[in-house]
Amino acid sequence: MSDLFSPGDDRAGNLFSDTALMEAMVAVEQVWLNELVSADLAPAAARQDLTGLVGPADLPSISQAAEAGGNPLIPLLQLLRERLQESDPLAAQWLHRGLTSQDVVDTALVVCCRDVADRLGDELKAQTDALAGLAVQHERSVMAGRTLTQHAAPISFGLKAASWLTGVLDARDDLDWATARLAGQFGGAVGSSAAVVELARRRGIEHPERTAVALAEQVNQSLGLAFRTPWHTARAPITRFVDALVGCTAAYGRIAGDVLVLARPEIAELGEPLAEGRGGSSTMPHKTNPILSTLITRTALSAPATASIVHLAAAGAVDERPGGAWHAEWPALRTLARGAVAAGSQTTELVTGLRVDTERMRCTAQSAAESLLAERRSIAALFDEEPTDTEPENYLGAAELLIDAVIDRARHPREDA
Amino acid sequence: MSDLFSPGDDRAGNLFSDTALMEAMVAVEQVWLNELVSADLAPAAARQDLTGLVGPADLPSISQAAEAGGNPLIPLLQLLRERLQESDPLAAQWLHRGLTSQDVVDTALVVCCRDVADRLGDELKAQTDALAGLAVQHERSVMAGRTLTQHAAPISFGLKAASWLTGVLDARDDLDWATARLAGQFGGAVGSSAAVVELARRRGIEHPERTAVALAEQVNQSLGLAFRTPWHTARAPITRFVDALVGCTAAYGRIAGDVLVLARPEIAELGEPLAEGRGGSSTMPHKTNPILSTLITRTALSAPATASIVHLAAAGAVDERPGGAWHAEWPALRTLARGAVAAGSQTTELVTGLRVDTERMRCTAQSAAESLLAERRSIAALFDEEPTDTEPENYLGAAELLIDAVIDRARHPREDA
Amino acid sequence: MSDLFSPGDDRAGNLFSDTALMEAMVAVEQVWLNELVSADLAPAAARQDLTGLVGPADLPSISQAAEAGGNPLIPLLQLLRERLQESDPLAAQWLHRGLTSQDVVDTALVVCCRDVADRLGDELKAQTDALAGLAVQHERSVMAGRTLTQHAAPISFGLKAASWLTGVLDARDDLDWATARLAGQFGGAVGSSAAVVELARRRGIEHPERTAVALAEQVNQSLGLAFRTPWHTARAPITRFVDALVGCTAAYGRIAGDVLVLARPEIAELGEPLAEGRGGSSTMPHKTNPILSTLITRTALSAPATASIVHLAAAGAVDERPGGAWHAEWPALRTLARGAVAAGSQTTELVTGLRVDTERMRCTAQSAAESLLAERRSIAALFDEEPTDTEPENYLGAAELLIDAVIDRARHPREDA
Amino acid sequence: MSDLFSPGDDRAGNLFSDTALMEAMVAVEQVWLNELVSADLAPAAARQDLTGLVGPADLPSISQAAEAGGNPLIPLLQLLRERLQESDPLAAQWLHRGLTSQDVVDTALVVCCRDVADRLGDELKAQTDALAGLAVQHERSVMAGRTLTQHAAPISFGLKAASWLTGVLDARDDLDWATARLAGQFGGAVGSSAAVVELARRRGIEHPERTAVALAEQVNQSLGLAFRTPWHTARAPITRFVDALVGCTAAYGRIAGDVLVLARPEIAELGEPLAEGRGGSSTMPHKTNPILSTLITRTALSAPATASIVHLAAAGAVDERPGGAWHAEWPALRTLARGAVAAGSQTTELVTGLRVDTERMRCTAQSAAESLLAERRSIAALFDEEPTDTEPENYLGAAELLIDAVIDRARHPREDA
Repeated sequence: MSDLFSPGDDRAGNLFSDTALMEAMVAVEQVWLNELVSADLAPAAARQDLTGLVGPADLPSISQAAEAGGNPLIPLLQLLRERLQESDPLAAQWLHRGLTSQDVVDTALVVCCRDVADRLGDELKAQTDALAGLAVQHERSVMAGRTLTQHAAPISFGLKAASWLTGVLDARDDLDWATARLAGQFGGAVGSSAAVVELARRRGIEHPERTAVALAEQVNQSLGLAFRTPWHTARAPITRFVDALVGCTAAYGRIAGDVLVLARPEIAELGEPLAEGRGGSSTMPHKTNPILSTLITRTALSAPATASIVHLAAAGAVDERPGGAWHAEWPALRTLARGAVAAGSQTTELVTGLRVDTERMRCTAQSAAESLLAERRSIAALFDEEPTDTEPENYLGAAELLIDAVIDRARHPREDA
Repeated sequence: MSDLFSPGDDRAGNLFSDTALMEAMVAVEQVWLNELVSADLAPAAARQDLTGLVGPADLPSISQAAEAGGNPLIPLLQLLRERLQESDPLAAQWLHRGLTSQDVVDTALVVCCRDVADRLGDELKAQTDALAGLAVQHERSVMAGRTLTQHAAPISFGLKAASWLTGVLDARDDLDWATARLAGQFGGAVGSSAAVVELARRRGIEHPERTAVALAEQVNQSLGLAFRTPWHTARAPITRFVDALVGCTAAYGRIAGDVLVLARPEIAELGEPLAEGRGGSSTMPHKTNPILSTLITRTALSAPATASIVHLAAAGAVDERPGGAWHAEWPALRTLARGAVAAGSQTTELVTGLRVDTERMRCTAQSAAESLLAERRSIAALFDEEPTDTEPENYLGAAELLIDAVIDRARHPREDA
Repeated sequence: MSDLFSPGDDRAGNLFSDTALMEAMVAVEQVWLNELVSADLAPAAARQDLTGLVGPADLPSISQAAEAGGNPLIPLLQLLRERLQESDPLAAQWLHRGLTSQDVVDTALVVCCRDVADRLGDELKAQTDALAGLAVQHERSVMAGRTLTQHAAPISFGLKAASWLTGVLDARDDLDWATARLAGQFGGAVGSSAAVVELARRRGIEHPERTAVALAEQVNQSLGLAFRTPWHTARAPITRFVDALVGCTAAYGRIAGDVLVLARPEIAELGEPLAEGRGGSSTMPHKTNPILSTLITRTALSAPATASIVHLAAAGAVDERPGGAWHAEWPALRTLARGAVAAGSQTTELVTGLRVDTERMRCTAQSAAESLLAERRSIAALFDEEPTDTEPENYLGAAELLIDAVIDRARHPREDA
Repeated sequence: MSDLFSPGDDRAGNLFSDTALMEAMVAVEQVWLNELVSADLAPAAARQDLTGLVGPADLPSISQAAEAGGNPLIPLLQLLRERLQESDPLAAQWLHRGLTSQDVVDTALVVCCRDVADRLGDELKAQTDALAGLAVQHERSVMAGRTLTQHAAPISFGLKAASWLTGVLDARDDLDWATARLAGQFGGAVGSSAAVVELARRRGIEHPERTAVALAEQVNQSLGLAFRTPWHTARAPITRFVDALVGCTAAYGRIAGDVLVLARPEIAELGEPLAEGRGGSSTMPHKTNPILSTLITRTALSAPATASIVHLAAAGAVDERPGGAWHAEWPALRTLARGAVAAGSQTTELVTGLRVDTERMRCTAQSAAESLLAERRSIAALFDEEPTDTEPENYLGAAELLIDAVIDRARHPREDA
């Protein structure tokens, strides 16, 4: 796998790859078949292990064949059935019964989302630890606060780290909220579970309707997903997750943006972690470009527009399954998810190894003291006084208390300050 | 107030208007001044009622003057101080002490958001009631289910209404979640509350830092907002609200999209509520255009891209206040908020008065029975049987149970299915 | 008129205001009525001057009434007819005959676009002059070239100005191209000109079809617009113009972005023009914020997403007139157009009065000479030499020739380098 | 190569693939090296054939290594140099001299764009032929014209085809315009061509500056590209091309949208070309989904937001090369380009094999005649007459003339009506 257009993409590994989607689709079909049998909706002999029936070598042909029906499940299912046909025609016959392709694709996407959430959760945890460390360590490391690019009033670098951490904690809370609402999709052709009800009826099962709903609950449970009534055209499980991904890239984008500013040679208060061969140029041998921040910024710039595609698709989900709006979600979701993970990994590396030049910070603040303390003087003037203290580090306000509050929040998962 | 470019905009009334923003900014300054005095951070004599100092007639000049400092609070504050100067120079002097313009603008925006949330909450409630009514009433009103525009399998119109309702309930849950997290912004020039701490020190108050944080908590409480550590560059309170607004317009867009399809003369299963003079054309006297759905669709198409601006701004929130990214939020937020409210009001009207032609639905389903029951026949074939029942209304699966589940969710606010 | 959410908006004056749109719609109806009469498609006595029939005071009621039919022309037309009815019932009867509301709204939008193009053309001209001046004046004003935020190799400020100018010239060429393709819309209800053909037939005019097409050509000519076959659902005239607007804001955004970087106090190579009261803060008396660049950046950040709405609408222009996609264009177009004009005006002011600190540029370049000349050393090494010249200003390459080429392009309108 | 998330993607073949980008980068380095030698800027012995030095097997390692420097050229160049080192150390040494990585990446992207333009040009030509054929063939095939989803007045299907064709011709003109402006990028580290000038000086060439510019012109010519002064941060060549791609997907989206409407079973006026196995479902054996239109619609929905990323990047192109904004372009450009080509191919197939049911069109128009002729009656009423003719096909206005005008335009490439 390669992606020359998205340097750093390999940090996302197999997440949301073609292989991952295929495996998730097979897993969904597998659990469904198992549970059909367990619920006596299919004959016991239809139970079959799908492991190894298809593999990465099948991806090109599945991909090419996906156009005819408009989604990758149809050719995958056909392949699975073909390969089962000889050895186990009964399983071939019962596979996918009661499902529609959207059930499998949506649930597989959700499984991929959950894997992304796991990985992002790890990154957010690591970032939280690193940022909390920076916030505490630099609680009183004075530096110039800047607004609209100009010197404003002093802050400590710890306060800035705490502000970055606030963004990361917001992203964490949003991700937790969205992930808890990732539900499987099991409604059949038009969301009524009619095929399962029909199977139940024909197999003489009592309460066929309740059986159908119970099956969906059971399959979700086996997959570790929440249950939800069919949402073929009510796309909140997807859009919320997308919003959480954008929440992550926004949190990362801010940090990277600050690093890009503060690592400028004229400012030089921060530096990216040094790594052999990183930040080089093809023609300028002296270069050490802030490349992590560059690539994080790239992702943060791109994510909002990409997410808007998914929202647009949600708003256009007409009929019982739309022609186009559903299909527009997939590549946008993949791009966002892999982008968020790569940016998450880069951000973890960035904040973990960030080089902080507190001496430079202090010098700049000192030389800008007149500007940075102008507000303080205007307050003194209210009392007809002249301030005698011209140390920027003595005008940090409640920075320590505020840092403590953010760190306190970091210690309490899923609580929002 | 007029907006020739956005028919229906007046449904949003005064929400997020220039007047509303100005009044909210004055309210924030008022509460802050009151609490400064109450906390003994300002002299008791500085307490002053700001009512009536500025009014709509001042908007053009404030608007024009806003460019110089880049935000509307600066000229508003100057005007307030000028007008206080003669009658109460002390109040003029103490007004806004400890705040930065971003504190006031952000908190005022949040106040405007809360008012929007109240209004949208009402709309969502009314929509929930209407849709729950339709879902129950049409639990068994059979119609053709359609996927990728083609006849798929039968549904009941009640199931479709329940699916619409699912979207509305998702929107409600998201809006509740975001609204509960709307916090005021009180951090001063660089988010450290340094000016308040300085005031406290000079006025000989013990624990100046705690006093500053307590003041922010108190002001939030008086405004009915949540407390949060300063979030000048951590924009989740705004972006979450924006996501909730897009959740609303997506829920509405789907409904409107379905109505646009089903009200086509060749389908004619649904009709918009009739109203005198509505849906007309400038040259075709016979026209009854589905104009509510048209305008809702317009808003649903536009919202995702508009929201992406706010997310982009969040991702670019560098320094202690960014030059440009902060400013990009305001008009986008206003457009989204007014659009969501207008679309919400239109949707309430649409679903409340929706004309449902169950006879036409049944006829279409009957004539398409062969297609609609193809899945059923394929299941019968599994059992080597021929289906004898060719009534679409007998292949509705677990529709009733699923409708019940959604209605049950509607009855339990803030619970997510 | 006020817009508290978009400081600087008043620079766009009346362009694309409600009044402007109303006046343009009246102008279109007027010219159409005149030409109907001139072509003998309406009786001579139907000619009537519409001046003064409606005015700004009518805007609120027109705006409110616009929802019923979904566009502002319908209530405007009704008002015009009502007010003509008594004095000139014949004119009232013939007004708008042969048109559909989309004809009038689209053509009025196009008229508004043309006025915007005129204004932007002036701004682009002024920017071109100012930037060409800077490019020549600073042809050899050495400064550090920066890539990925780090010092790269030396440039002259003139080369940077020429690069800015390249963007402005690209914007100019795009705007010229799009403006030349702004065509009126005259096709009647479904784009067939059937009503005009019918009028011609009934009035016994020979070649009714040719008469209808000739009328459209004539009306366009009278309005100073190009002719084009009806484009109700082929929206290139609008989308091209939108692309040109985004081309302008991109050109401006780059300049503003560079100023925001280079006006940072630690860099201080550029400064915005000073103006009394500009750049101030509500709490920090020392502040001189780069407010023009801030507001230009705001617009440049917002424009691409806003433009995407118009493109999306174009892609969804189904039927002979779509329900929603057409309506989504208007507010997006207005936002873009006013934003581009305001940013254009701010950019003109910025580049005309830009403060350039060549001494600071030189100092920074000198102290960074080792880095800035690393590439030069690596070339010398190819020849087994050590460079003796360590003056950054002697490594400016073909800067002068390249500046000349850009300036040469500036002198030749509508030629693309 | 596979893409399970974007069914139909394989229609784009190798265009803008990793392989294509790598090959284009090698081609640029090759031509540059050749011309360096030809211009005597490098020794004759440095000329070397790069063919076969790298291949698809190198993509994963290049991709992974691309993160360190932030772009794929750096590791590719390193690999080329390593592999040349033993056999031809002189070529290894001279390779890439005078270039910066952005020169090579940008020019390679432009080469990929040109290949896309060639392919899209073919598609647009085929579409033009097919649509012109439909327009002529169905010049008088009456059908209901529809506005805001409702019956409006009659049109002919030929008029609709001509309107589709208008969109395709607009796309063609935009693509031609943008493609003619695709220029190579050759400016070196900071756009001054300083390294080439230095090389020229050291090799004792007269007029080193002119030599540098002439080299850039010559390399462009060898690559079949236009010359342009360096545009590292003036991104119009890219953004114009992107706008042209969106112009294509908009033209296609409209057609697909109309087909999705008109192929609904209740309307059934159009049908997609039939193809074995196409349009199927995983559970509903009867299904023939309009899958080409579905997938085209998907792309048309996604393209505007994706394009907005490229515009945003252009607006943020600060310094002499931005950190992030440049990098954000690449994947967006690839997504757009491959999407436009796939949609183009699908559209060609759609319009070439479109099934038109003129009888059904006529029947619907006949039964809706009362509505469709309401405008006509209102005109008759102006003359105090009752229309006797109630045939929709006799109220087609100037359709034939308008069709002729569009077809005439189709015959004259690059002329805009």
